[in-house]
Amino acid sequence: MSDPNEVDQNGNPVPETRVLAIASHVVYGYVGNTMATFCMQTLGCEVAAINTVDFSNHTGYHQWTGTRTPAPQITDLYAGLRNSNLLDYDVLLSGYIPSADVLHEVTTIARDLKFRRNTMNHGRFFWVLDPVMGDQGRLYVSEELVKGYRDAIGQGSDGPDLLVPNGFELELLSGVHLAGGGGGSEDGGELERKPTGDNFEADLGQVKKAIEVLHTRNGMPMVVVTSVRVQGKQDVLCVVGSEKKSDGSSRCFVVEVPVLDCYFSGTGDMFAGLMVARLREEAAAAGLLNKASYASEDDVLATDLPLAKATVKVLSSMSAVLEKTMQARNKEMEMWEGERKGMGQVASVDPQDHKGEEGGEERAKSLARTKAAEVRAVRNARDLIHPKIRYEAKELQE
Amino acid sequence: MSDPNEVDQNGNPVPETRVLAIASHVVYGYVGNTMATFCMQTLGCEVAAINTVDFSNHTGYHQWTGTRTPAPQITDLYAGLRNSNLLDYDVLLSGYIPSADVLHEVTTIARDLKFRRNTMNHGRFFWVLDPVMGDQGRLYVSEELVKGYRDAIGQGSDGPDLLVPNGFELELLSGVHLAGGGGGSEDGGELERKPTGDNFEADLGQVKKAIEVLHTRNGMPMVVVTSVRVQGKQDVLCVVGSEKKSDGSSRCFVVEVPVLDCYFSGTGDMFAGLMVARLREEAAAAGLLNKASYASEDDVLATDLPLAKATVKVLSSMSAVLEKTMQARNKEMEMWEGERKGMGQVASVDPQDHKGEEGGEERAKSLARTKAAEVRAVRNARDLIHPKIRYEAKELQE
Repeated sequence: MSDPNEVDQNGNPVPETRVLAIASHVVYGYVGNTMATFCMQTLGCEVAAINTVDFSNHTGYHQWTGTRTPAPQITDLYAGLRNSNLLDYDVLLSGYIPSADVLHEVTTIARDLKFRRNTMNHGRFFWVLDPVMGDQGRLYVSEELVKGYRDAIGQGSDGPDLLVPNGFELELLSGVHLAGGGGGSEDGGELERKPTGDNFEADLGQVKKAIEVLHTRNGMPMVVVTSVRVQGKQDVLCVVGSEKKSDGSSRCFVVEVPVLDCYFSGTGDMFAGLMVARLREEAAAAGLLNKASYASEDDVLATDLPLAKATVKVLSSMSAVLEKTMQARNKEMEMWEGERKGMGQVASVDPQDHKGEEGGEERAKSLARTKAAEVRAVRNARDLIHPKIRYEAKELQE
Repeated sequence: MSDPNEVDQNGNPVPETRVLAIASHVVYGYVGNTMATFCMQTLGCEVAAINTVDFSNHTGYHQWTGTRTPAPQITDLYAGLRNSNLLDYDVLLSGYIPSADVLHEVTTIARDLKFRRNTMNHGRFFWVLDPVMGDQGRLYVSEELVKGYRDAIGQGSDGPDLLVPNGFELELLSGVHLAGGGGGSEDGGELERKPTGDNFEADLGQVKKAIEVLHTRNGMPMVVVTSVRVQGKQDVLCVVGSEKKSDGSSRCFVVEVPVLDCYFSGTGDMFAGLMVARLREEAAAAGLLNKASYASEDDVLATDLPLAKATVKVLSSMSAVLEKTMQARNKEMEMWEGERKGMGQVASVDPQDHKGEEGGEERAKSLARTKAAEVRAVRNARDLIHPKIRYEAKELQE
């Protein structure tokens, strides 16, 4: 009910923000809503979480238990919120969605929330869509769901305001190959050939082209590609974002961040959660919360966009936390190795469960490594709240 | 894997703590795990959350949708954690449990976790049990579950280390009437008469007696009664705690906090979550994390117990946040009334859903009041992390 442009008296960097977050939940570790909710709450956002799955742990452990939430159960939870008058959200963040049915429900929810909020004069509704489909050339959802995402981003003003795909997902949605050479199809249909695979190196010109397709063909107001490797730069990842101008043209910025030698799960969710909070902060500072899609004027340069400023803050927080996570992981694995040696290869963590199995020792080590790489967001919340700015957004001209 | 007595370099007040939290989840608002998880994470605890229900909102709205988690589903999630070697918890916090089946599963989990942790030499396992059964004379779980709780707290060293009942629940578990006069039965069976009802005034001597029954009959190491009204003091609530000495006798302390004129949901969960973190902090400071039930020496005075110090910090945080919540609620309801008047009694929040219903206006107002009283923990996280100490623990001598 309060004015979102009002300055907060409690030291919160982000204006009052109510988020509906629809994504996965895991009991242990930090991916999906379990990651994004913590990041948003730590930055002062009120988060209502609808969980699309409820798993024991993330799939990087190669084993898990739990349930997927059927679409009618999500419909039912939303009806409960409606009946209790609990639908005054500023932002929808949608992440992992297990099926085309659930995606259909999410787009229905988005349309309903946007209608409610935009007729209430308490600031505009904003939908951040993380189109979780796959990574590094590997699709982990159904083709039907991929088609569903292509439809969802073609809804114009009922669609998402900000899309945060990885490189692979950008290819799938734009139809543009990111590696140099191939043009791909731009009609929103199937790619003419298989999307670019594992650890490919993107051409930034192609990345820009793909973003422009989303701006012009889909009317997507904002896009941030959360990580692509580029030709000739082995040691950095590029994050590329753009907000379209009123004529549909792009204004792209790029932020380079160092590659860390560690695989983390949940970084996409961390990016999306922090982005919700920081984009609210920057859009409030620019007085844009009452404008559709928090749109900046056409004369704002790429590097001065709220989206660019938010991206720099988000990436600065993430790098600090991920570096500390990698240090903690290395220390934890050293201790783990030491304990295994001290006990003559007998499992200390779990004596019953993995002994005698074929490859039991390898498996125990793989599980320990995955666990040790769980992102240390909670113990390093200070880096989320007060990031030391490490990076700079530069205009992408190619 | 790290030493829990190690001083933290990242400004976290609480030592590294891994919590398994088994309680309810709501999409909107702050009760159960949704409240406790945020409180613990904000104080630096890693929290793995198993949700016993998944509701749209708390039951104070008098309407909700969602599902209860069947016991086999909880068993399954726990098996997933076990298979992935994710069972190295320092603390179990168990809150709302919907059925005797689920309680049985939780006590099995507690026994398993305690065995694993206590054979690992990384500090002792600690179980905080919030026996959510009812309040103010009204039971909201089955008699079978009440019986289940009575059995669960009679397990000796396999049972909970700290019990955090409200006054009503203390009566149900101890068999001692808290109002002056009646003695109740102390054999763990049914109370001889109905438990004391709505807004009763407790006799602190009876509260002490009830706690002593739990110490001696059940061997319960620690108890904190989260709120009782006492005779002759209309404007305060008493929080009474005790840690038993080695001979089973009590050492009770009491903290008086002012009554706020507002009904909040989730305060029990807030108390329990903050208590987990603060008790870890105080037990670490006293070098007790490797002792069973974090037991203090017999010569430690009631008011010097880690439990007493933790209680004072928890209540100081809670009062600050609840006062700010009440102010925000009042402001929100003033705006709500203003908007209703301005719109000639037409609902602004939700034009479709409640018009034309009998009592629709009353109902809309009741929903708005409940929503406005959702605890503002997220926006006031500073008060959770750095409470201004307002209260004092005094020895309870009567």
